Amino acid sequence: MTIDPVDLTARLVRCPSITPEEGGALQLLDRLLSEAGFRTVRVDRGGTPNLFARWGDGRNGRSFGFNGHTDVVPTGPREKWSVDPFGAEIIDGYLYGRGATDMKSGVAAFVAAAIDFVRETPPDGSVVITVTGDEEGGAEHGTVAILDWMDRQGERMDVCLVGEPTCPERLGDMMKIGRRGSLTAFFTATGVQGHSAYPHRAKNPLHALVALMGRLTETPLDAGTDHFDPSTLQITTIDAGNPATNVIPGSATATVNIRYNDLHSGESLTRWLDEHARAVTGATGVGIALRIHNSGESFLTPPGDLSDLIAGAVREETGLDPVLSTSGGTSDARFVKDHCPVVEFGLVGERMHAVDERVAVDHVHRLKAIYRRILTGYFA
Amino acid sequence: MTIDPVDLTARLVRCPSITPEEGGALQLLDRLLSEAGFRTVRVDRGGTPNLFARWGDGRNGRSFGFNGHTDVVPTGPREKWSVDPFGAEIIDGYLYGRGATDMKSGVAAFVAAAIDFVRETPPDGSVVITVTGDEEGGAEHGTVAILDWMDRQGERMDVCLVGEPTCPERLGDMMKIGRRGSLTAFFTATGVQGHSAYPHRAKNPLHALVALMGRLTETPLDAGTDHFDPSTLQITTIDAGNPATNVIPGSATATVNIRYNDLHSGESLTRWLDEHARAVTGATGVGIALRIHNSGESFLTPPGDLSDLIAGAVREETGLDPVLSTSGGTSDARFVKDHCPVVEFGLVGERMHAVDERVAVDHVHRLKAIYRRILTGYFA
Repeated sequence: MTIDPVDLTARLVRCPSITPEEGGALQLLDRLLSEAGFRTVRVDRGGTPNLFARWGDGRNGRSFGFNGHTDVVPTGPREKWSVDPFGAEIIDGYLYGRGATDMKSGVAAFVAAAIDFVRETPPDGSVVITVTGDEEGGAEHGTVAILDWMDRQGERMDVCLVGEPTCPERLGDMMKIGRRGSLTAFFTATGVQGHSAYPHRAKNPLHALVALMGRLTETPLDAGTDHFDPSTLQITTIDAGNPATNVIPGSATATVNIRYNDLHSGESLTRWLDEHARAVTGATGVGIALRIHNSGESFLTPPGDLSDLIAGAVREETGLDPVLSTSGGTSDARFVKDHCPVVEFGLVGERMHAVDERVAVDHVHRLKAIYRRILTGYFA
Repeated sequence: MTIDPVDLTARLVRCPSITPEEGGALQLLDRLLSEAGFRTVRVDRGGTPNLFARWGDGRNGRSFGFNGHTDVVPTGPREKWSVDPFGAEIIDGYLYGRGATDMKSGVAAFVAAAIDFVRETPPDGSVVITVTGDEEGGAEHGTVAILDWMDRQGERMDVCLVGEPTCPERLGDMMKIGRRGSLTAFFTATGVQGHSAYPHRAKNPLHALVALMGRLTETPLDAGTDHFDPSTLQITTIDAGNPATNVIPGSATATVNIRYNDLHSGESLTRWLDEHARAVTGATGVGIALRIHNSGESFLTPPGDLSDLIAGAVREETGLDPVLSTSGGTSDARFVKDHCPVVEFGLVGERMHAVDERVAVDHVHRLKAIYRRILTGYFA
């Protein structure tokens, strides 16, 4: 008896696991994997539910890992949904619900593939499954906590596949072999408040921020690299909140988000931002404080055995040659990359985070089949 | 019996005439001027109290005018005052209270000087007094309304002295022979909202505003003219109000205030701002809407008879040669200049609009004496 990944997706969708709620989703997987002979451990930390599962003794042979999450973003206005977001209804070949693509179907596909695989063709090695309940939130105690615990316990994955949606249009058209880094810089400029008619008695923090933002945006950060798009920098907000047109405000803030490739690091960018801020302070006399939040360094798993294995399985199942991409936002691969080589492959991200999120039932079956081929290939 | 300008200032300060409240201040002046033989008319418009007064028949001989206001700005936190802001207490030679310098003392000084003058040395001509109750507010129905009414009635001032504080440090050190114009430009940039990781799918309105603000601030508007300081441009606010660091906002606003000299006009500046906005829209695809509020064109009363008369009176009374300046913010002289040549001279603007606003008692007496000398000289 094989595991139906669509049925498992539906059962997971019915668990209302909006971050940080567990919602029964990890409990369901825990039970299923235990029954299939996996050793399971709940590795909760800081209120975040996490699940580790291993088939095999973890010492002999190679160890293949999957990573995913069962938490979902909020539904948004319920009245805008044409279905119950936690109902998992199937209509015209699509399963609807929050998490249908991001990423309860991905988790269901790799759990189903792994269980079938170890039962039907027990490998000479281990299959590890790591699922967190906080990928959509701060992720502070999510996959990171599982990896910390694994390090302490001597648990390992030799390679890891993250099952996030990766395909822009057709199932099989793209896999991710790395991700750009994401760094946010919060600037606070403090000048001297004054009257608009007497600017020589004031120091306008907005003029300093405009000069600084001009410096940061006037030239592209780079032209891209072999495997990465050009880095991008976006001003996400500037605020002074001054309603008086005859007043020069005393302070103002600006926020900049940078998505960066392998030519940069959080450290190099922080240095670059700081140098520009200092230069503007030197020119204007306006103090500029800089706070950095680096939510993930860029990383690359260079094309090689792992990407070949996955591309081959995708090709056999879909007939498509997946593009090896590093585009898009962050994922928990940014944590896994410190543990072992990591690649991402999953569904078409249809209506992720939107109302009426849905997944093609057929795609879930094919995704399971791809994952199964990957396991077979890895342990061959 | 002469009028004591300090006593009159105190009586005016005790009228709580925070814009738009009349507070009894114009009533008091109305009574006093009527008793002194002035023809007085309340020229209220749109809820704003205004007073016109004329001594003489207004037809024969020359007509000298004074202009001022009795309204005051709010007190701010009362507990920060060391005295009752409407108490007009005199302590150590200073009279304290809201409006003590801006400009109940100025009004008291010219009213007292005018009454004494016409009684003691009746001139062959007219003395006109125009006092509004809305200079500190929108001024929409203030001095403008008095001048409109005068035009319709055939009333006139051949020259006018505005009694606002003009001296930066010492009584007599500066008079104003013009004012810069003040124009405020409100920009609304509308782009396309999107995810920070995918800027090619969005159009960032903040990048457009930064580019625009950079253009507007990178080179000074001018280097000043014979009688004017350089024009200045200040960004008074930029706002997007976007708390999400992974979101490119859909729209953002910026406000710019320009204080401009006689090289510019509201029209030329509007054209200049519009050209830059269009250029940025062309380069970025971000729409930029522009709304202009021009609160007063720049103007100059060229040095000549009027400024010589006033400078002479100041010199005789104080020993100082007043600088002929066009610096500072706007005043109702911006309206009067369309009626007749106008010059401003008044007190040291100590603690204007601040807590514990105060005026040196001695200065009020001397200001009255200067105004009296001006009248004598004018009608000599």
